[in-house]
Amino acid sequence: MPPISEKGKQMPSSPIRKLVPFAEEARRKGRIIYHLNIGQPDIHTAPLAMKAVHASHPKVIEYSHSAGNESYRKKLAAWYNRWNYNITPENIMITTGGSEALTFTLMSCFNPGEEIIIPEPFYANYNSFAVAAGVKVVPVTSSFENNFALPAPSDIEKKISPKTRGILISNPNNPTGYLYSFEEMQQLKAIVKKYDLYLISDEVYREFCYDAVPFHSVMELKGVDENVILIDSVSKRYSACGLRIGALVTRNRMVIETAMKFAMARLSPPSLGQIAAEAMIDTPESYFKEVYHEYLERRNYIVNALNEIPGVKCLMPKGAFYTIARLPIDDCDAFCQWLLSDFEYHNQTVMLAPATGFYATPGLGKEEVRVAYVLKKEDLKKAVECLREALKIYPGRK
Amino acid sequence: MPPISEKGKQMPSSPIRKLVPFAEEARRKGRIIYHLNIGQPDIHTAPLAMKAVHASHPKVIEYSHSAGNESYRKKLAAWYNRWNYNITPENIMITTGGSEALTFTLMSCFNPGEEIIIPEPFYANYNSFAVAAGVKVVPVTSSFENNFALPAPSDIEKKISPKTRGILISNPNNPTGYLYSFEEMQQLKAIVKKYDLYLISDEVYREFCYDAVPFHSVMELKGVDENVILIDSVSKRYSACGLRIGALVTRNRMVIETAMKFAMARLSPPSLGQIAAEAMIDTPESYFKEVYHEYLERRNYIVNALNEIPGVKCLMPKGAFYTIARLPIDDCDAFCQWLLSDFEYHNQTVMLAPATGFYATPGLGKEEVRVAYVLKKEDLKKAVECLREALKIYPGRK
Repeated sequence: MPPISEKGKQMPSSPIRKLVPFAEEARRKGRIIYHLNIGQPDIHTAPLAMKAVHASHPKVIEYSHSAGNESYRKKLAAWYNRWNYNITPENIMITTGGSEALTFTLMSCFNPGEEIIIPEPFYANYNSFAVAAGVKVVPVTSSFENNFALPAPSDIEKKISPKTRGILISNPNNPTGYLYSFEEMQQLKAIVKKYDLYLISDEVYREFCYDAVPFHSVMELKGVDENVILIDSVSKRYSACGLRIGALVTRNRMVIETAMKFAMARLSPPSLGQIAAEAMIDTPESYFKEVYHEYLERRNYIVNALNEIPGVKCLMPKGAFYTIARLPIDDCDAFCQWLLSDFEYHNQTVMLAPATGFYATPGLGKEEVRVAYVLKKEDLKKAVECLREALKIYPGRK
Repeated sequence: MPPISEKGKQMPSSPIRKLVPFAEEARRKGRIIYHLNIGQPDIHTAPLAMKAVHASHPKVIEYSHSAGNESYRKKLAAWYNRWNYNITPENIMITTGGSEALTFTLMSCFNPGEEIIIPEPFYANYNSFAVAAGVKVVPVTSSFENNFALPAPSDIEKKISPKTRGILISNPNNPTGYLYSFEEMQQLKAIVKKYDLYLISDEVYREFCYDAVPFHSVMELKGVDENVILIDSVSKRYSACGLRIGALVTRNRMVIETAMKFAMARLSPPSLGQIAAEAMIDTPESYFKEVYHEYLERRNYIVNALNEIPGVKCLMPKGAFYTIARLPIDDCDAFCQWLLSDFEYHNQTVMLAPATGFYATPGLGKEEVRVAYVLKKEDLKKAVECLREALKIYPGRK
């Protein structure tokens, strides 16, 4: 048998993935599982998506332009310019999800062996995209105690080497729910300017910012036009994850032109998804308000409920739909597996994401789990009940 | 400005792409261009695609399984098994087009610096996928004189080095239209068995085989289960290029498991595309017959018409919807550009793909162009007229 590639061997299998067989086994036993482990919301997709697709009768479902339909890019540029980002359709490449936008960015801007600095904990798939592109992830740790704020600029600068090419943030943050402040964005700007680095900002959760804390896009930063790259997606904004439509946005012409070479090789992003995505730009405010209030209520409920469980500490996140909870346990990987394999409460259990998968530094996050509040409140309630009961009897309780 | 990656610089810009600005300029001048340069057919998409999408009313457009919907994989396995390929749903990964299937294959099976042998001329984007994965393309030349048949096994073996990991073929072939025979497939099998290589077969044109010449899938080969990987797509089969649905099919469990790690990072293939693709499996024979006869008539027309132009030689291809024509010209890149920038016949011109882009060996293909017969016969007729007139006055005529 011919060998598998080294990259293939190195591709991380995240802690959540290791739980999947245990979840399947639990389901086979008839167990009800509350999934707080995933980023797939139960929120209904913006209705204009299927309306546009239903109204579409193409004789031939053709390739689109490799950068995406021009009509869509024009509308999307106008959408960004509601916030005065000064984006042209030429600054935008429509991609197959935010995932592809990030892959194209890494491939276009980083040589194999070069380094990308990412505040940890971070979205676990960043590891996979980095391995695929041969890029080395250099974590800089943010802490539960400090609310998962951006690490001090001096801590970030300590991580910069001659091989550093860029910094990647997710804002609002997955998995912490942290929302970077104006000052933090300015700190990042100063660093990328000083060292001439790329600043890549994954802003797919930008619609979900709570408590009137303002969101600051990387596109607001002045004087670093050539440095900043925005990763966007319709997945969370309109609860349309399955469309696989994202965008790479940058005013750096060389980056867009280089990414275009990768884009042309794969021909085009999905045509039906683009029809839906373009139409959804006209989604009325009422949809976002409804969704926002739903998430807000869920967040308030779950954070308070988790903090009421003895020994549990949970921050009140300002963005996205995740929070990191600190639990009185020995090891989150063992605990999350035990929840599926050994535990049940009235034939129910809960699936959580072990936080170890979000840290690149070994040993960190062992007492933390990521909680995604993507279920309706009744289910969140039952999930919290399960967790409370589980922590009473978990053998590895501290 | 931070630097662009070396890969980004190396990503080939194919000769067709270099023609695009000239085509745009011609269009601005009001010129009618007959596009024989592209693989986007004008054939109507199998009607079950949009029918299924119109009948679909998802409340939430969710991520699918990273390997694609199980229902689709089951149906697709059954489809392959009409030819007794002995494929299970676990052997199949649904991908975002054949492009992604090939990218995942290269990433999973090849280390950077390792080599893939490809008979040239070959589909130009293979170069791009190879550069992205850091894989070195080693061409083995097939010739116009020999009908673009598979090079002799001894010629292929000469190209094998300790770094060789696999052989990639496209069957029926893009750009030559060549259809590999039973004997040629056996020769390839013997080589991959002898040297323990992967044999990757891109069979996206399998529905288009003419003159009762049988098609032989890589999946028919016995005793090399761990070596063979099939790249498939719905793009050409159902004329549904824009759906971006393909498949990676292999009985090698390690390859599928490794590819799954890359697939999980990008979450899922497009959901709407999968709905359409699954439904299209039930497309009645009448659709394929109609399309087949349309292509057959086009092929017969264009090959005969091209051969009637003085100095032009064109093979009668047995598959796909391309043929390579040899023209009495100095340089196909210059000629194809001249057609767009300088030539017009009754305000019309024709766009062709310079064959240089399909060869990895420098200097080859200079007198050849790829002709895609993806337009209706009236347009093919006008395109041939343009070419005939152009060759009368082209300054670089030999």
